[in-house]
Amino acid sequence: MFDFQIHHRDGSSAARAGEFSTPHGTFRTPAFMPVGTRASVKGLLPRDLRDLGAEILLANTYHLALRPGADVVGRLGGIQAMMGWNGPVLTDSGGFQVFSLSNLRTVDDDGVEFRSHIDGAALRMTPENCIETQAAIGADIVMALDQCPPYPASRSEVEEATERTLLWARRCRDAHRTSDRQALFPIVQGGEFDDLRRQAARCLVAEVPSPGYAIGGVSVGEPHEIMMRAVDSAAAELPADRPRYLMGVGQPRDILGAIRRGVDMFDCVLPTRNGRNASAFTFSGILRLRNQQYEGDGGPIEADCDCPACRGFSRGAIRHFFQVGEMLGPILTSLHNLRFFARFMARIREAIRAGRLAEYEKEFLKSVDS
Amino acid sequence: MFDFQIHHRDGSSAARAGEFSTPHGTFRTPAFMPVGTRASVKGLLPRDLRDLGAEILLANTYHLALRPGADVVGRLGGIQAMMGWNGPVLTDSGGFQVFSLSNLRTVDDDGVEFRSHIDGAALRMTPENCIETQAAIGADIVMALDQCPPYPASRSEVEEATERTLLWARRCRDAHRTSDRQALFPIVQGGEFDDLRRQAARCLVAEVPSPGYAIGGVSVGEPHEIMMRAVDSAAAELPADRPRYLMGVGQPRDILGAIRRGVDMFDCVLPTRNGRNASAFTFSGILRLRNQQYEGDGGPIEADCDCPACRGFSRGAIRHFFQVGEMLGPILTSLHNLRFFARFMARIREAIRAGRLAEYEKEFLKSVDS
Repeated sequence: MFDFQIHHRDGSSAARAGEFSTPHGTFRTPAFMPVGTRASVKGLLPRDLRDLGAEILLANTYHLALRPGADVVGRLGGIQAMMGWNGPVLTDSGGFQVFSLSNLRTVDDDGVEFRSHIDGAALRMTPENCIETQAAIGADIVMALDQCPPYPASRSEVEEATERTLLWARRCRDAHRTSDRQALFPIVQGGEFDDLRRQAARCLVAEVPSPGYAIGGVSVGEPHEIMMRAVDSAAAELPADRPRYLMGVGQPRDILGAIRRGVDMFDCVLPTRNGRNASAFTFSGILRLRNQQYEGDGGPIEADCDCPACRGFSRGAIRHFFQVGEMLGPILTSLHNLRFFARFMARIREAIRAGRLAEYEKEFLKSVDS
Repeated sequence: MFDFQIHHRDGSSAARAGEFSTPHGTFRTPAFMPVGTRASVKGLLPRDLRDLGAEILLANTYHLALRPGADVVGRLGGIQAMMGWNGPVLTDSGGFQVFSLSNLRTVDDDGVEFRSHIDGAALRMTPENCIETQAAIGADIVMALDQCPPYPASRSEVEEATERTLLWARRCRDAHRTSDRQALFPIVQGGEFDDLRRQAARCLVAEVPSPGYAIGGVSVGEPHEIMMRAVDSAAAELPADRPRYLMGVGQPRDILGAIRRGVDMFDCVLPTRNGRNASAFTFSGILRLRNQQYEGDGGPIEADCDCPACRGFSRGAIRHFFQVGEMLGPILTSLHNLRFFARFMARIREAIRAGRLAEYEKEFLKSVDS
């Protein structure tokens, strides 16, 4: 059911372009996954996401397990039916949200006790119930439970989290009974410590054979260079014939650097969150659409963009929607930003095919900085 | 530029079906106009409105004049360009909002002084600047400034408002210099007093020849029977070959009764406002989508509906979106409700064509009450 085909390699870097097949369809890599935290990419219809070029969506297990509950998602036909999206879906494990959103958590090797950030209810997550929950939700790709240390963290803290993540990955592997329809991706932790990253990746590859592997514990406040070193260390030990997923990363500069190091999948709330804040990505830099200068501006956000915002609306109209609090401002700018990311990934795939990713990266970074 | 063609008449009532042509296209009557108060039908893309069967939209002069300002709408290419809607648009005069939203208003024959409900700024609306503002906004159909008395109101209050409305209609007529591209519709007032309604309609027809006429001062809290009598009285005096527009009316029962009395156009926030409150119209009655009973309901809002909500999402998923505060709940339910109104108007037009509107009205009212 799960198959990764690499069609092109960039001559001068570890980048590759290909496609990954799942029970709900195939997506091209390198891929950017829009985030539909609570079974909805905020404000957008799945048909529009498809038209924009999205090929796989992400949903958050933690949020769905709290509301409406994994059992309800199952009764509604699974996450694809619930989202109205007949395509591949990935769910995270929920671990990241337990460690970042909930209060009063206590973690030991068995699992993590936490309180719901919504109503304070006491809950427990273990590798086994994490896999069970994700089986009920029914995504095509599910993630192993991991412990994500903060940044910065001491070596001993990171060591403990990395060992526990490995322990939990083995238990997830043993609990995973749906490999005919769900691919389980384990997660490499190791913080900023190259040897821990390498060792974690080696152990996971040896002990948890999987159709793909993720690199976690990044995009938690560390500088670009630290993130790139973490990718270098992990990617060096991950199998070349399996997709590599860098979790939660969405800054274009980080995406380019990670793809050059052999990463194939990304997810981030950046296009939709920034879109809701009137911040538009373009290939010549960021536009702040609330700025007074756009009041009477009859041109589109980006002249050569084919998204519904740019084809139908002026900067001035979109600014007005933000100024008066109309939903159409966030909706149009989210549509534009997701289209920007889809075009960005398409240009990257084309650059890989043409063996000129390094040049494309330079051109892009120069263009957005100017 | 403006032409009203009546294609069918219902044998047993004053109902008729036809079409009205404007510089931005033709719409079929009886017509329901979705409301885009601030140049946006809340949360919906114009393409979706078109797909749902909307043929003309309404925007509110009062709101647009305050923000972004009629001059800015003009600089952005006019209301159609601003809304991303290449079709007919109607703007109201702003008078209704001045009398219902703003504070500290003082009205005399010259015009009305009021304070903005947004920032308290002192403003003045006269028939002349009302027409000027609507000329800058650029809708296909513009409305004369009227004074809408509350319900209930004394006869002398209603007399004063009705006379002033006639005075203002004459001044709007004289100020209206864009009849090549904008149709000016005067408004019949007269409250619940049949003779005042008749007299107001007669005077307007004699003194303000127009491509269409509106009946205002309804849907302000009066019972159904009072509204229907007001329609009866006004419609009896309005020219049979011009469209009649009943302002702000959207309850299906009121729409049916008014169409039977010869009304051709309606607008109301009901489908979108109720949609944002999780209340869905169906041909078998209202659904409250937040109800617990829909939690695990995998069926669509309405089985035979072809809207994006019903084709792509379950009641359970939409309930979840409302429960967690996702924009997709209001968006999907607004789409469904507007599709309901479009299908409702299409069934009415078909019943008129077949000469069986009275039967259709009975069937419909029985079905939604059951």
